[in-house]
Amino acid sequence: MPAQTGLGEFDLIARYLAPLSTAAPGAFNLRDDAALLPVQPGEELVVTTDAMIEGVHFLAKDGAERIARKLLRVNLSDLAAKGAKPIGYQLILGLPGTPDETWLTQFCSGLRRDQEAFGFPLYGGDTVRSPGGIILGVTAFGSLPAGSMLRRSGAQSGDDLYVTGSIGDAALGLETKLNHRLFSSAAMLFFDSRLHIPTPRLALGQGLRGLAHAALDVSDGLVQDAGHLAAQSNLMAVIEAAAVPLSLATRQVVQDDPDLLDVVLTGGDDYELLFAVSPSRASQIAALSRSVGLAATRIGRLESGQGVVVQDQSGSPLTLNRTGFQHFGGS
Amino acid sequence: MPAQTGLGEFDLIARYLAPLSTAAPGAFNLRDDAALLPVQPGEELVVTTDAMIEGVHFLAKDGAERIARKLLRVNLSDLAAKGAKPIGYQLILGLPGTPDETWLTQFCSGLRRDQEAFGFPLYGGDTVRSPGGIILGVTAFGSLPAGSMLRRSGAQSGDDLYVTGSIGDAALGLETKLNHRLFSSAAMLFFDSRLHIPTPRLALGQGLRGLAHAALDVSDGLVQDAGHLAAQSNLMAVIEAAAVPLSLATRQVVQDDPDLLDVVLTGGDDYELLFAVSPSRASQIAALSRSVGLAATRIGRLESGQGVVVQDQSGSPLTLNRTGFQHFGGS
Repeated sequence: MPAQTGLGEFDLIARYLAPLSTAAPGAFNLRDDAALLPVQPGEELVVTTDAMIEGVHFLAKDGAERIARKLLRVNLSDLAAKGAKPIGYQLILGLPGTPDETWLTQFCSGLRRDQEAFGFPLYGGDTVRSPGGIILGVTAFGSLPAGSMLRRSGAQSGDDLYVTGSIGDAALGLETKLNHRLFSSAAMLFFDSRLHIPTPRLALGQGLRGLAHAALDVSDGLVQDAGHLAAQSNLMAVIEAAAVPLSLATRQVVQDDPDLLDVVLTGGDDYELLFAVSPSRASQIAALSRSVGLAATRIGRLESGQGVVVQDQSGSPLTLNRTGFQHFGGS
Repeated sequence: MPAQTGLGEFDLIARYLAPLSTAAPGAFNLRDDAALLPVQPGEELVVTTDAMIEGVHFLAKDGAERIARKLLRVNLSDLAAKGAKPIGYQLILGLPGTPDETWLTQFCSGLRRDQEAFGFPLYGGDTVRSPGGIILGVTAFGSLPAGSMLRRSGAQSGDDLYVTGSIGDAALGLETKLNHRLFSSAAMLFFDSRLHIPTPRLALGQGLRGLAHAALDVSDGLVQDAGHLAAQSNLMAVIEAAAVPLSLATRQVVQDDPDLLDVVLTGGDDYELLFAVSPSRASQIAALSRSVGLAATRIGRLESGQGVVVQDQSGSPLTLNRTGFQHFGGS
């Protein structure tokens, strides 16, 4: 197979990766040891890192282009949750000894597509041999006015808790993928796309600067991530289950099988923004939501205390059978 | 083995990694989605990435503390080569499903030791499960006055080519490790330490700002890296083999077996700085070398042309049997 032989490290960088850096002058065409990042006076640099490992975060059959896009989007989602504007990224690419150039071509095509969509060029990185499977690591850079980064901490007792978009679609996509759960084909297509191509909520996140008291992106699951925000703010989160925004497809699926509400509330990979804001700012949140064309729904509140309570419509606590995702099983 | 069970991702971060971030206020104790990097007005941010993969760059038996220190030092060496002052780093840590806490404790102890030595705290990162072996990735940040970064390009015809310290010690350490080559035990200890604990030449690199025309660190091998500098500057590098600085141990070994000169000139992992400077600056280089206590030796020059020529003492070209290191075999 000629497409799989003779690709040296320097060729790989020059042929596949350097073209992804042309929009970043400080990347020096990937021909130097390091890159220079632009930081304007009065701005701060936000940095975040997410890695994806073959067999853990993705399977080779997921499709190289979708893997590339998810890799960039999960990092962009972290920038969005902090209110930052994307600058660009560093890439760690670990490949087998004889890289599959078809895979690589599709992977780079996915990177290019989302780099262009989000103004997020490649600045540099490292390309290594990885006998144990494909390794992908991104360190993403963004900028914002000094002092304006949205934190997980900072929520206040009495704040309303909001979430963007809809919750649970990606978790239902994972149910199909891992547990072979069947839904209507339209629903399955939708869940699959929500799982593999999350949308970083950049415009809304930037609009939350100076408005929200705390924010994060929902990657581990709504309940667990609400717990992170509450814990970092020394508060308790109260989630009203009936208020959690569901897509039409998810609403239908949960109606058919109410047990799936657990999956929806605790499943990961939504990449929506969860944020705490004073009730006095409700009209500003509504205006921001309209201006960026993205729903922002009040799903509960923050109170003194600790942990997360999920309430049903009568205000009684719901007991969930799962919590959320973490690596290494947990204790 | 209780030490290997029950360590969840959040516990791992809180117990092992968060203590490494205390010197970095913008790391928020690793409790947020992102970190804030300090960049002073008038400074630029330099960024570089290096990954190390178990079975490719290191073996588990190399010792976790030494692996950690090399991981930081190869990244710090890139910052040194660009003239940057270290700020801190992001870490990707891929571990088996049940992390070995003894390994992890030693690894973090190595990180701590060199973080403190170089003023280089942890800002954040990602911790993932890696069934295929340990994965280590660092994205390192440094700063320098705007416009002063040392590049691989920019050398001029007639420039002298210098290298710091001594060349080939690490390559001889690798000969022992991979090819079971035996030298005196004192020499083997020295070569091994040069291979596993390289010294980033930070003070000398910072002193080269505004003085050298081009610089890089010797990681792939002296000849290959001289080729990189020459190619990026559209010039030819001429290396005078007899001028290349050798440690006492390496000089002895090459006297005993002249065939090892190939290994010395083309082996990687020296992490010395190679730089191009106008002959008119020789006394400034000598003064810088004295002030930081590190040898800087003229080993040749840059001329119009391309490629690298290694000359013997009569000026005749030497033919080498190897070129240098790259991943994926190369074409």
